[in-house]
Amino acid sequence: GYAKLDTHRKSRSGFAEVIFCSGKSDKHMLEIFGRLYEDEGEVLGTRASEEQYELIRKEYPEAEYDPISRIIKIEKDNKKRVGKIAVCSAGTADIPVAEEAAQVAEYFGSNVERIYDVGVSGIHRLLGTMDRINGANCVVAVAGMEGALASVIGGLVDVPVIAVPTSVGYGANMNGLSALLTMINSCANGITVVNIDNGYGAGYVATQINRLGVRK
Amino acid sequence: GYAKLDTHRKSRSGFAEVIFCSGKSDKHMLEIFGRLYEDEGEVLGTRASEEQYELIRKEYPEAEYDPISRIIKIEKDNKKRVGKIAVCSAGTADIPVAEEAAQVAEYFGSNVERIYDVGVSGIHRLLGTMDRINGANCVVAVAGMEGALASVIGGLVDVPVIAVPTSVGYGANMNGLSALLTMINSCANGITVVNIDNGYGAGYVATQINRLGVRK
Amino acid sequence: GYAKLDTHRKSRSGFAEVIFCSGKSDKHMLEIFGRLYEDEGEVLGTRASEEQYELIRKEYPEAEYDPISRIIKIEKDNKKRVGKIAVCSAGTADIPVAEEAAQVAEYFGSNVERIYDVGVSGIHRLLGTMDRINGANCVVAVAGMEGALASVIGGLVDVPVIAVPTSVGYGANMNGLSALLTMINSCANGITVVNIDNGYGAGYVATQINRLGVRK
Amino acid sequence: GYAKLDTHRKSRSGFAEVIFCSGKSDKHMLEIFGRLYEDEGEVLGTRASEEQYELIRKEYPEAEYDPISRIIKIEKDNKKRVGKIAVCSAGTADIPVAEEAAQVAEYFGSNVERIYDVGVSGIHRLLGTMDRINGANCVVAVAGMEGALASVIGGLVDVPVIAVPTSVGYGANMNGLSALLTMINSCANGITVVNIDNGYGAGYVATQINRLGVRK
Amino acid sequence: GYAKLDTHRKSRSGFAEVIFCSGKSDKHMLEIFGRLYEDEGEVLGTRASEEQYELIRKEYPEAEYDPISRIIKIEKDNKKRVGKIAVCSAGTADIPVAEEAAQVAEYFGSNVERIYDVGVSGIHRLLGTMDRINGANCVVAVAGMEGALASVIGGLVDVPVIAVPTSVGYGANMNGLSALLTMINSCANGITVVNIDNGYGAGYVATQINRLGVRK
Amino acid sequence: GYAKLDTHRKSRSGFAEVIFCSGKSDKHMLEIFGRLYEDEGEVLGTRASEEQYELIRKEYPEAEYDPISRIIKIEKDNKKRVGKIAVCSAGTADIPVAEEAAQVAEYFGSNVERIYDVGVSGIHRLLGTMDRINGANCVVAVAGMEGALASVIGGLVDVPVIAVPTSVGYGANMNGLSALLTMINSCANGITVVNIDNGYGAGYVATQINRLGVRK
Amino acid sequence: GYAKLDTHRKSRSGFAEVIFCSGKSDKHMLEIFGRLYEDEGEVLGTRASEEQYELIRKEYPEAEYDPISRIIKIEKDNKKRVGKIAVCSAGTADIPVAEEAAQVAEYFGSNVERIYDVGVSGIHRLLGTMDRINGANCVVAVAGMEGALASVIGGLVDVPVIAVPTSVGYGANMNGLSALLTMINSCANGITVVNIDNGYGAGYVATQINRLGVRK
Amino acid sequence: GYAKLDTHRKSRSGFAEVIFCSGKSDKHMLEIFGRLYEDEGEVLGTRASEEQYELIRKEYPEAEYDPISRIIKIEKDNKKRVGKIAVCSAGTADIPVAEEAAQVAEYFGSNVERIYDVGVSGIHRLLGTMDRINGANCVVAVAGMEGALASVIGGLVDVPVIAVPTSVGYGANMNGLSALLTMINSCANGITVVNIDNGYGAGYVATQINRLGVRK
Ligand SMILES: Nc1ncnc2c1ncn2[C@@H]1O[C@H](COP(=O)(O)O)[C@@H](O)[C@H]1O
Ligand SMILES: Nc1ncnc2c1ncn2[C@@H]1O[C@H](COP(=O)(O)O)[C@@H](O)[C@H]1O
Ligand SMILES: Nc1ncnc2c1ncn2[C@@H]1O[C@H](COP(=O)(O)O)[C@@H](O)[C@H]1O
Ligand SMILES: Nc1ncnc2c1ncn2[C@@H]1O[C@H](COP(=O)(O)O)[C@@H](O)[C@H]1O
Ligand SMILES: [Mg+2]
Ligand SMILES: [Mg+2]
Ligand SMILES: [Mg+2]
Ligand SMILES: [Mg+2]
Ligand SMILES: [Mg+2]
Ligand SMILES: [Mg+2]
Ligand SMILES: [Mg+2]
Ligand SMILES: [Mg+2]
Repeated sequence: GYAKLDTHRKSRSGFAEVIFCSGKSDKHMLEIFGRLYEDEGEVLGTRASEEQYELIRKEYPEAEYDPISRIIKIEKDNKKRVGKIAVCSAGTADIPVAEEAAQVAEYFGSNVERIYDVGVSGIHRLLGTMDRINGANCVVAVAGMEGALASVIGGLVDVPVIAVPTSVGYGANMNGLSALLTMINSCANGITVVNIDNGYGAGYVATQINRLGVRK
Repeated sequence: GYAKLDTHRKSRSGFAEVIFCSGKSDKHMLEIFGRLYEDEGEVLGTRASEEQYELIRKEYPEAEYDPISRIIKIEKDNKKRVGKIAVCSAGTADIPVAEEAAQVAEYFGSNVERIYDVGVSGIHRLLGTMDRINGANCVVAVAGMEGALASVIGGLVDVPVIAVPTSVGYGANMNGLSALLTMINSCANGITVVNIDNGYGAGYVATQINRLGVRK
Repeated sequence: GYAKLDTHRKSRSGFAEVIFCSGKSDKHMLEIFGRLYEDEGEVLGTRASEEQYELIRKEYPEAEYDPISRIIKIEKDNKKRVGKIAVCSAGTADIPVAEEAAQVAEYFGSNVERIYDVGVSGIHRLLGTMDRINGANCVVAVAGMEGALASVIGGLVDVPVIAVPTSVGYGANMNGLSALLTMINSCANGITVVNIDNGYGAGYVATQINRLGVRK
Repeated sequence: GYAKLDTHRKSRSGFAEVIFCSGKSDKHMLEIFGRLYEDEGEVLGTRASEEQYELIRKEYPEAEYDPISRIIKIEKDNKKRVGKIAVCSAGTADIPVAEEAAQVAEYFGSNVERIYDVGVSGIHRLLGTMDRINGANCVVAVAGMEGALASVIGGLVDVPVIAVPTSVGYGANMNGLSALLTMINSCANGITVVNIDNGYGAGYVATQINRLGVRK
Repeated sequence: GYAKLDTHRKSRSGFAEVIFCSGKSDKHMLEIFGRLYEDEGEVLGTRASEEQYELIRKEYPEAEYDPISRIIKIEKDNKKRVGKIAVCSAGTADIPVAEEAAQVAEYFGSNVERIYDVGVSGIHRLLGTMDRINGANCVVAVAGMEGALASVIGGLVDVPVIAVPTSVGYGANMNGLSALLTMINSCANGITVVNIDNGYGAGYVATQINRLGVRK
Repeated sequence: GYAKLDTHRKSRSGFAEVIFCSGKSDKHMLEIFGRLYEDEGEVLGTRASEEQYELIRKEYPEAEYDPISRIIKIEKDNKKRVGKIAVCSAGTADIPVAEEAAQVAEYFGSNVERIYDVGVSGIHRLLGTMDRINGANCVVAVAGMEGALASVIGGLVDVPVIAVPTSVGYGANMNGLSALLTMINSCANGITVVNIDNGYGAGYVATQINRLGVRK
Repeated sequence: GYAKLDTHRKSRSGFAEVIFCSGKSDKHMLEIFGRLYEDEGEVLGTRASEEQYELIRKEYPEAEYDPISRIIKIEKDNKKRVGKIAVCSAGTADIPVAEEAAQVAEYFGSNVERIYDVGVSGIHRLLGTMDRINGANCVVAVAGMEGALASVIGGLVDVPVIAVPTSVGYGANMNGLSALLTMINSCANGITVVNIDNGYGAGYVATQINRLGVRK
Repeated sequence: GYAKLDTHRKSRSGFAEVIFCSGKSDKHMLEIFGRLYEDEGEVLGTRASEEQYELIRKEYPEAEYDPISRIIKIEKDNKKRVGKIAVCSAGTADIPVAEEAAQVAEYFGSNVERIYDVGVSGIHRLLGTMDRINGANCVVAVAGMEGALASVIGGLVDVPVIAVPTSVGYGANMNGLSALLTMINSCANGITVVNIDNGYGAGYVATQINRLGVRK
C-alpha cells in the first residue's frame, strides 16, 4: 500500500503509532487498524466516527468506542500506569478535547487526574481543586473561547503546563485562533502550546514529561 | 479654522471635549487648548508628548503633565468626585493605559481606586484586593499579552467590566490584537471591550456608568 | 455529571444561570433545563434549535420557543421590570441578535424599547426615533455589514452604548469581524463592544447598567 | 533612463501623468518633474517631502508646496474648472488625504466643495451641510477610524460616493484596514472604495465622473 | 411588520428598492415582493433560490427567474434604456456575478454590453473586444482568483472602472479577499472597488455614472 | 512603588524572578535589579540594551552583559548544574534567541549543549550532531523563516521538543508568525510551542522538564 | 456558448486545455468535454466528482476516472513520455494532490517517479529514497500541516523544487495557508510555490521544466 | 566561529554560497566575505548597506557596489554566460528587486534580458517587448501593488514564469502580501512564486531552469 506504517516507532520512541482516523477510507482504516493490532497487541485511533466504529467492530468485536473523545481502541488488560498528569478543562464543551488528551495519556501508560469545568469566570472552582492538581508531573490545560485557563494554572503550579486551545466559541473566536493566541502570549511561566483541538498531541507530550518525572 | 470644536458638547452629553494631542501641529495644539480652557475653565489632553507640554507650558504655566499617562491638563480646584470606579492593571507595563483611564475618569468627576500589577499569573494578588474592588459601580480591567485579567474579574464582581486590551507584549501579541480577541471572547458575563490602548474611552464610559450608579 | 452548574450564581451576581443550548446533547439539555427550572422556578436557554424545543416541550409543555431569537424559556408570571434599555438594530436581518438581547434583558427584569431597521443608510429613520431612545439607561446597538450604527447612536445619546456586531453580510464582512472592527474603532464616545452575534452578552451587561440607573 | 514616462497619456485618457514622489531619488525627481513640466506646461507631484520641495524650488522657483496635502506643483494660470465634486472628511486628521483628493481634482479641472470634520459621531454637523453637498456630480468621503461617514452620505445623496479609508486611528484600526472593510461592506448604495490614504485615486475617478456629468 | 420598507426611495434617489432574497423567510419574501410590486408596478430580487422562485410564482405567475444570476423579477414592458455600460468577466465562473450586475443595470434603465471570459491569462481575448467596450460611460470588471482584469482594463479606457472581486477560486483566494486586495491596490487609475460578489452594487453605481453621462 | 515584586516566587516555584528589561525606565531598572540582587545574591535580566548595562554597571561593576543574547546578570560562583538540555538553532541569525534560552536555562541550573546553524536546508549538518543531542532531557529548537527545524528534530528524538519561532526572515514571514504556524502544525510528535523570539520562556520550561528528568 | 474555449492553446503553448470540472453544470461539462476530445483526440478534467464521471461515461464509455486524484480522462494510447519528474508527498493524506500533479504531468508527456509518505517527522524515509529522486529534472514537493518537506528536499537536490501546500491538517493550518507560508519562507534555495492543493499547476510547470531538461 | 559556512555547496549544487548581508555584524561580514572570496576567487552579497560596502572596500578595494540592487561583489573576469532569462518589472519602484534577480542570475552564469516598467496599467508597453522576451528559458516577473504582471506574462509565453511580489505600494498592499496572493492565485498556467522582495531566490531558480534549457 501507499502508506509507510512506522511499526518500529515503539522501539525508537517508546510510543506505538496511533491512527488519525478522520478522512481515512474504509479500506485503509481496516488495513491499518489490523496491522497495528497485530504488531502491538493493542491499537488506538483518534477522531473516529460512529461509522468507522461500526466498520471496525464487525471485524474486531473487542474494539471499544467513546463518542465523546471519538477514540476507538483495543487496549491490553492490566496495563501498568505511572506518575500523574492533571487534565483540566475550562468548560463542558471542551471535554471532548480533554478526553482525547486524557485517554491518549492513559493508553501510553500515564495516570490521569481529570478536573473539568473549572474555567476562569468562576475562579473558586479551579482553586478548590488545587490539591488534586498538586503532585502531577505536568498539567494539560484545555480551553476555548478566550483560553485564559492556562495562564491562571501556570501561576499556581511549578510543573510544565501544556496548553490546548479549542475551537469552542463563536464569532471572533476564529475557530480557536483566539484561544491559541491567548495561550502563546501567556504572561505566566512554564506554558507551551499545541495546535487547536490537538488533545492527542497534548497527551503525547504530557506522557513524555510524565515519564521523565518517574524514570529511575 | 478647519476644525469644528464641539463646545456645546458638555451641555449635550455632560462631558467636556478632550484633546487627542497625538499628531496635532503646534499651531493647532495651542489654539484648541486655549479655546477649550477659555470655554470650560479647565482642559485635558491625552497622548501628549513632552514637547507638546513644553509648548503649552510657555503659554499656560499652570498646566500639568504626567509622563506616564501622557496627560496634560489644567484642572479646576476642589472638583467634587462621586461614586467609585476600580481601575485594575495586569502588569506594570500596562500602567500608562490604566492611568489614562483613571485620570480621565477623575477629571470627569469619578472617584477611582487603583489596583495595579494584579495579573492572572499570580492570582493571589488579585484575590487579595477584592475588598478594594467591591463597592465600585464598574471595573476597568487593563491588560496586554494574553489579556486574561478581564475574564477573571468578570467572574468575581457583579458590575460591568470595561476591558482595555493593551499593546504590551511582543511576537504573536500582534500589537494588542491578541488581548483584544481574548477579551471579546470572554467566557465571563458583564465584559465589554474598547480599542487597544484606549484608556480614554474606558475612563469615559466608566464615568457614564458610575454616574448612573450615583444618580439621585 | 461532568458539568458544574453554578446554582449559587444568582445570589452572588443577581443573575440566574442561562443555558447556551447550541451543541448540547439531548441528555444534557433535559438535565440542565430541569435542574435550573427546579432551582429558580424559571429558566431560559439561548441558541436553541426547533429540535431542542420539541424535546423540552414533551417534558415541560409550559415551555415557550421563539424561532427568531431562538430562545426557549419558562418565565415566572408577573415579573416586575424596571428602568429602560433601548435595543436598536440596523437591518431586519439583525433582528435575531437584537431579540436575543432584548428578551434576555427582559428576563433579567429590564424594560426594553425595540427600535429596529434604523440603519445609517437612511439616517432619517434613526433620527425619527430619538424620542423613544431618550430616557433609556443604556442603548444596545446591533448591526452587521459595516456596523456604523453604533457610532451614530453614540453621538446622539449621553448613556453607554453596547455595540453588538453581527455576522450579517457577505464577502469582506468576514463573518462579522468587519463590523466588530468598525465598532471597536468608533470615533464616538461611550461605545463598548461584545462578541459577534452575542445578543446574550449585550442583554446581560445592559441589565447591569440599567439596574445601576434605577438602584435606590 | 529606466522609467518609461507616459507622456502620451493625456491625449489617451484626458489626464496628464502625475508624479508619485515618495521614495524617488533626487536625481529621478528632478528629471521627471522637469520632463513633465516641459511637456505639459504644468506639473503636479503627490506625497512630496519638504526636502523634495527644497530640491525642486532651487531649479523651479515658481513651484508651490502644500505641507498638509504634501502636494508640490506648478499650475497654469486661469485654468477653467467645471462641474462640482464634494470632498467630505470625518475628522481633522483626515484632512491631508482629503486635500490630496481635492487638489488633484482641481488640478484636473473640477470645482471642489470642501466639507471637513463632519464625522458621524456628531451627525448634525453633516446634516447641516447637505445644501453644499447637493448639486455635486459625486462625493468623495474620507474617513479613518471606523470609517462610517461613507455609509451615511451614501444614504443622503443620489450620486456616486467615492470612499477613501485613511490610516488615521490606532490599535485595531490596523493602519486603515478597518475603515476599508467598513466602506467595502457598506449597507448604502452607490459606494465604491479606493486604497487606504489614496486621495489621488479618489480625486482622479471623481474627476472622471464629474466630467461625465458636465459633458455636452 | 418589523421591516421599514423604503418606498419613497425612488423619488429620493431615482432607484426603486430591490430585495436581497437570501435568508428571508417565505412569509417575508411574499409580503415584501408583493408590496414593492404594488408600489412600483415592477420588482426585482437578487440572490433568490429556486425554492423562493417556486413560492413567488404561485402567487405571481408572471415572475421570471434566471438561475445563473439568481435574479427573480417582474419587469415593466418597453422600458427605455439609455447610455452604455460594459460588463466584463474574467472567467466563465464569474458570469453569475457579472449577470447580477448586468441585469440590475438593465432593470435600472441602462444599456449593457456583455463581454465575458476575457481574463488576462489570454490578453488577446480582451484586446479583441475593445471596440465593444469603447463608448461605454463606465466599465464593470468582474474577476475572481487573482482579479487582475480590472487593472488591465483601467489602462485601456478613460472612463471609471467598477471592479467586482468574486469568490471564484480556491486555496489562497480566501473566498475573494485576494481578488479584492488586487483591485484595491491597482496601479491603474480610475478603478474603484465594491464588495466580493457584489454584482448588485456594481450595477447600481454603474447606472448612477451612466445616467450622469447621458443626462441633458 | 507600583510594581509588586514576587520575591517569594523562588520558594513557590523553584525559580527566582527574572527582569524583562525592555521598556523599563532607568529608575525602575536600578530599583528592581538592586532589590532582586539583594534577595537572591544573584540576578538576571533579559532584553537589556547597552545603555541599560552602562546604567547598571555604574552601581554594580560585577554585572556582566552579553550583547548577543542581550542578557545582563550577576551570577553566583560555582553553581551546580544538572541534567542536559540541547539548544539547536536553524541559522546564525537565530542565535540571539537561542542564547537567551541557553543562558536562562544555565542560570536556572541546567547543563546546556549548544548546536547552532543546523537548519533543514542542509540536513546533513543536523544529522551529524545527533550524538550531542542524544541524552538530553529535552530539546529547544529555535528557527525563523519557515521554522521547519522543530519537525525534523521531533522525528529524531524521544524527548519533548520546545519549539521557538523567531522573527528572522522577511516578507511573508510576517515577523515570525509564519514560523509559529509551522511549529504549531507540526506533523511530528512531542512538539510544543512558545511565543515568537521567546527564548526566555523556552529556557524556563526546558529547565522544568530537565529537573523532572534528574529528580531523585 | 458563453465560454471561449482556447483550442489553439496547444499550438501556442504546447499544452492542450484541461477542464476544471468543479462547479461546472452538467450541460457545460458534456459540451466542453466533447469539444476538447474532438479537437485533440484526448481530454483530461481535474476536480471531477463521481457524479460528473457517471454523466460523462454514459456518452463516452472509454472515459476513465480515478477517485483519488479526482481526474477524469480519455488518453491516447502509446503516448511517449520523456525526462523525469519526482513527485514527493509528506503524508498519505496529501496523495490526492500529489496524484493530480503526477497524472497531469504524465498526460502532458513526462515520466513521473512517485515517492509518497516521506514527511520530515521521519527523515530516514526521505533519505532512503534519494536514489529515486536523483536524475529528475525537477521535484514536486506536496505537503500539508507544517509543509516542511519542500525545504528539506531543496537542500538535497540541485534542480528546481515546485512546492505544493495542501489543505491537509486542522486548527491553525488555516486550510493550507500555514503550509503555503512555510514554503514561501523556505530557507532552502530553488523552491517556488503554487496555490494550496494546486496539483494541476505543479504538474504543468514541472512539465515545462522537464521539457527544457530534455529538449535537443 | 558559530556560522557553518557551506563551502562545498558549489560542488554539490553548482551554486556558490551567497552572503545575505542584512543584519550581519562588521566582524562577521568581513570574515565571511574573505573566506568565500578565498575559496571561490569571487564573492557576492545581497542586501548590503553603503556602510557595509565602505567596510569591505577598505580591505578589498576591488569590490563593487550597486546602490540600487544593494549587491556587493567581486566577480571573476570573462565569465561565460549561457542561455537567456527575461527579467520584467511592473514599475520603476520594483527595479531594486528586479536587479537583485538579474545580477544574481548573471553571477551564476545566465544571460539576462532586462524589461522594466511594463506594468499592466499600460499593456501596450509589455506587448511591445515580446520579441525580447521570446527565446528566454524562463521569465522572472517582478511586481508590487496588485502584482498582475505575472498573470499577463504567463498567458503570453510557454516557459516557466517565476513571480516575485514586491513590497512596493501602500495601504492595503500589506507590505507585499497582496501582490503575493495575486500571484499565487494566478489564473495563468506556468506561474510559481517566491517570497516578497526575494529577487535572490528568483535569480537562483531561474538559473537552475536556464541551465536545464542549455544543458547538453
Ligand atoms: N448566547 C450566548 N452567548 C454567550 N454566552 C452565553 C450565551 N447564552 C448563555 N451564555 C453563557 O453561557 C453560560 C452557560 O454555558 P454552559 O455551561 O456551557 O451551558 C451561561 O451561564 C452564560 O454565562
Ligand atoms: N498619491 C498617489 N497614490 C497612488 N497613485 C499615485 C499617486 N500619485 C500619483 N500616482 C500614480 O502614480 C503614477 C506615477 O507613478 P511612478 O511612475 O512610480 O512615478 C501616476 O501616473 C499616477 O497614476
Ligand atoms: N485543478 C486545477 N487548478 C487550477 N487550475 C486548473 C485546474 N484544472 C484546470 N485548470 C486551469 O483551468 C483552465 C480551465 O478553466 P475553465 O475555463 O474555468 O474551465 C485550464 O485551461 C487550466 O488552465
Ligand atoms: N537576498 C536574499 N534573500 C534570501 N536568501 C538569500 C539572499 N541572499 C542570500 N541568501 C541565502 O542566504 C544564504 C546565506 O545566509 P547566511 O548563512 O545567513 O549568510 C545564502 O547561501 C543564500 O542561500
Ligand atoms: Mg458552565
Ligand atoms: Mg510583575
Ligand atoms: Mg431595510
Ligand atoms: Mg473633531
Ligand atoms: Mg476559460
Ligand atoms: Mg548559513
Ligand atoms: Mg504516515
Ligand atoms: Mg511609471
